[in-house]
Amino acid sequence: MTDIAQMGKRAAEAERILACAGGHVKNNALENIAAALTENKAAILAANAVDLESGKAAGLSPSLIDRLALSEKRIESMADGVRQIVLMDDPVGRILSGSTRPNGLKIQKVSVPLGVIAVIYEARPNVSSDAAALCLKAGNAVILRGGKEAIHSNKAIAGLMRGAVEKAGLPADCVQLVEDTSRESAAALMRLNDYVDVLIPRGGAGLIRAVMENSTVPVIETGVGNCHVYIDRSADIEMAAEIVFNAKTSRPSVCNACESLLVHKDIAEAALKAVKAALDAKAVEIRGDEAVRAILPGVKPAVEEDWGTEYLDMILAVKVVNSVDEAICHIAKYGSGHSECIVTGDYASSQKFVAQVDAAAVYVNASTRFTDGGEFGFGAEIGISTQKLHARGPLGLEHLTSEKYIVLGSGQIRE
Amino acid sequence: MTDIAQMGKRAAEAERILACAGGHVKNNALENIAAALTENKAAILAANAVDLESGKAAGLSPSLIDRLALSEKRIESMADGVRQIVLMDDPVGRILSGSTRPNGLKIQKVSVPLGVIAVIYEARPNVSSDAAALCLKAGNAVILRGGKEAIHSNKAIAGLMRGAVEKAGLPADCVQLVEDTSRESAAALMRLNDYVDVLIPRGGAGLIRAVMENSTVPVIETGVGNCHVYIDRSADIEMAAEIVFNAKTSRPSVCNACESLLVHKDIAEAALKAVKAALDAKAVEIRGDEAVRAILPGVKPAVEEDWGTEYLDMILAVKVVNSVDEAICHIAKYGSGHSECIVTGDYASSQKFVAQVDAAAVYVNASTRFTDGGEFGFGAEIGISTQKLHARGPLGLEHLTSEKYIVLGSGQIRE
Repeated sequence: MTDIAQMGKRAAEAERILACAGGHVKNNALENIAAALTENKAAILAANAVDLESGKAAGLSPSLIDRLALSEKRIESMADGVRQIVLMDDPVGRILSGSTRPNGLKIQKVSVPLGVIAVIYEARPNVSSDAAALCLKAGNAVILRGGKEAIHSNKAIAGLMRGAVEKAGLPADCVQLVEDTSRESAAALMRLNDYVDVLIPRGGAGLIRAVMENSTVPVIETGVGNCHVYIDRSADIEMAAEIVFNAKTSRPSVCNACESLLVHKDIAEAALKAVKAALDAKAVEIRGDEAVRAILPGVKPAVEEDWGTEYLDMILAVKVVNSVDEAICHIAKYGSGHSECIVTGDYASSQKFVAQVDAAAVYVNASTRFTDGGEFGFGAEIGISTQKLHARGPLGLEHLTSEKYIVLGSGQIRE
Repeated sequence: MTDIAQMGKRAAEAERILACAGGHVKNNALENIAAALTENKAAILAANAVDLESGKAAGLSPSLIDRLALSEKRIESMADGVRQIVLMDDPVGRILSGSTRPNGLKIQKVSVPLGVIAVIYEARPNVSSDAAALCLKAGNAVILRGGKEAIHSNKAIAGLMRGAVEKAGLPADCVQLVEDTSRESAAALMRLNDYVDVLIPRGGAGLIRAVMENSTVPVIETGVGNCHVYIDRSADIEMAAEIVFNAKTSRPSVCNACESLLVHKDIAEAALKAVKAALDAKAVEIRGDEAVRAILPGVKPAVEEDWGTEYLDMILAVKVVNSVDEAICHIAKYGSGHSECIVTGDYASSQKFVAQVDAAAVYVNASTRFTDGGEFGFGAEIGISTQKLHARGPLGLEHLTSEKYIVLGSGQIRE
């Protein structure tokens, strides 16, 4: 049995105990994790310093170094994140529905943990505690496989979490970290169907594609967002410019940021000038089609590739369309099913757009940046699902559960 | 672009229209399908005769020939199945939940079609109309890939369905049949992530394993059932024998049939004798461990392999256990997460069993044979899910939908 398979087996064994643990026990484990993070900042920072030094030596980009870097404040915010999860309702054991059948069988559908969840992620060490806390609260054993850049930080954090979980009377193996950060270890995890129930990748498009391609374990696809704002003929131009500015510039590196703007031809001149005036304040690069460049001379031409690109940067592709239908078609062709917005004053356009656009979240007159577990009121999230199976949109605690039918009888047999 | 990719593209285009079709239109399409089946029995039977002839020439087993064979009665029952789906509520457009956020955003979660569903199945031609009707009712375009044994029957049925769908004003490509029944066509379908949202395999363990291994499209795993009945110390022996007899013999070839029996040692002698007396009436072969053979001399010995085998036949593996905990451990080790039953008179044992056994359906004092969409009150089903993602247990119409968040604002931007 390989090391990864053995980890899987231990996770499955720990899970059998964790699945039946009461809410108090799970909350104790989370409180212990938060306390351990708070009390061991120095040790975590020392481990993080090793990662930062290797990262700089390896020539990691400043933005990657920023994602990797911890500070006292960042560690405290990790601990606070765990404490927030304590306050949330236990997602396990909810009675979701039920009925009594004509033969007297009482059938109820109850929420249960998913089981063993593997999380594959990249350079952010805070994902280790975020993901583990959410999984634990929902009764799931977790196998963490972070990136090699953060291995020392992750070892420190995972070690603290294992001790904290054990102190609450649960098996330490409810939380495990894969210390081998080779491609092979990730590949093995993706094929560990005997022990792993669900795999969640958290990271860039490349990671997610690799997991979708190679995993035989069921996956919850998260993250890639090629989000559009469409300014309809009847839009309030000031509102439109504010929404585009917010959706593009408030945090360009995240998946719910706007990447393409579509503008109805009848409003294009005024709307594009207002949008450009707003975006110029943050030096956003506009790439436009011919109609856009006729109105905004001097902007770069957009090429076919621009429509499908998630820039995650201060760049916006812009196109003029003839109708809401053309906007919907463009989104169907190039969108990634994440978050799409129409700015409109017209009832029929709004209805058509929300009915026909196929995405996790469809907005009328609001920024795409709201697609987020916290903003949706779910408390915390483990990612944004862009697939249609299981859950779509922000993944909260309840999405880390499965269900079980409990059927109570008095000797019924089937005819 | 390959033929399969072109079919996928056509399905996705048809789906954009079907997804927004009203309930009346979808019901018209289903009624047209039922009528076409009823009115074209002769043509379907003629096509089926060609399959049967080739099947016999190829030496197919009598049970496979039986699954393949249609009759006027079987075709009428296919049409009735479609008509039943007409009567069911539209699963699309349900408002599942909603809230108004502090910033005034109105968020609602609405059920939407999954999109394009591919169904890979084996020799039963009735799956073609069953699966297509369920998919259509839930607004999903369907790509059918049946087995080569049934290709002529499937072509006849799919052709009728396409005409019926078109007559209702929907694109014929809402229903497509892959006429190439090579392994390559199935493999291509499993990797058609650009166009196929979900893949559902319907068939034996080999088919399901192949799909799980090779599909990059998200899969709903269905079907394999290594189901147990556990007779607790406190069981009513007569009830236990009836349940075991029903769960084993009422239809041994299906996934919810019982394959293993576990008996508490304190009740083993009386329970095993009662069970054997019942099973002897249908000449069920018992394979027992040592303790069983001490009570029932002459039964075959069970070997390790027996505990993990889904016989789908008149064979039962039987083991004596020391406690409900040992029964739960045995089920955790060998069960397939389908349907598990305890026969008991003891409250604590029943509570422990339903809490700790991890399966789609857990029964107290009732036959495992009830795990079925019809018996659970779902009307019709497309299979029994044994995975934990998306849906577990009988898959009804609602499980053929996904969800979408619709967010209505008045210019909100995120701070």
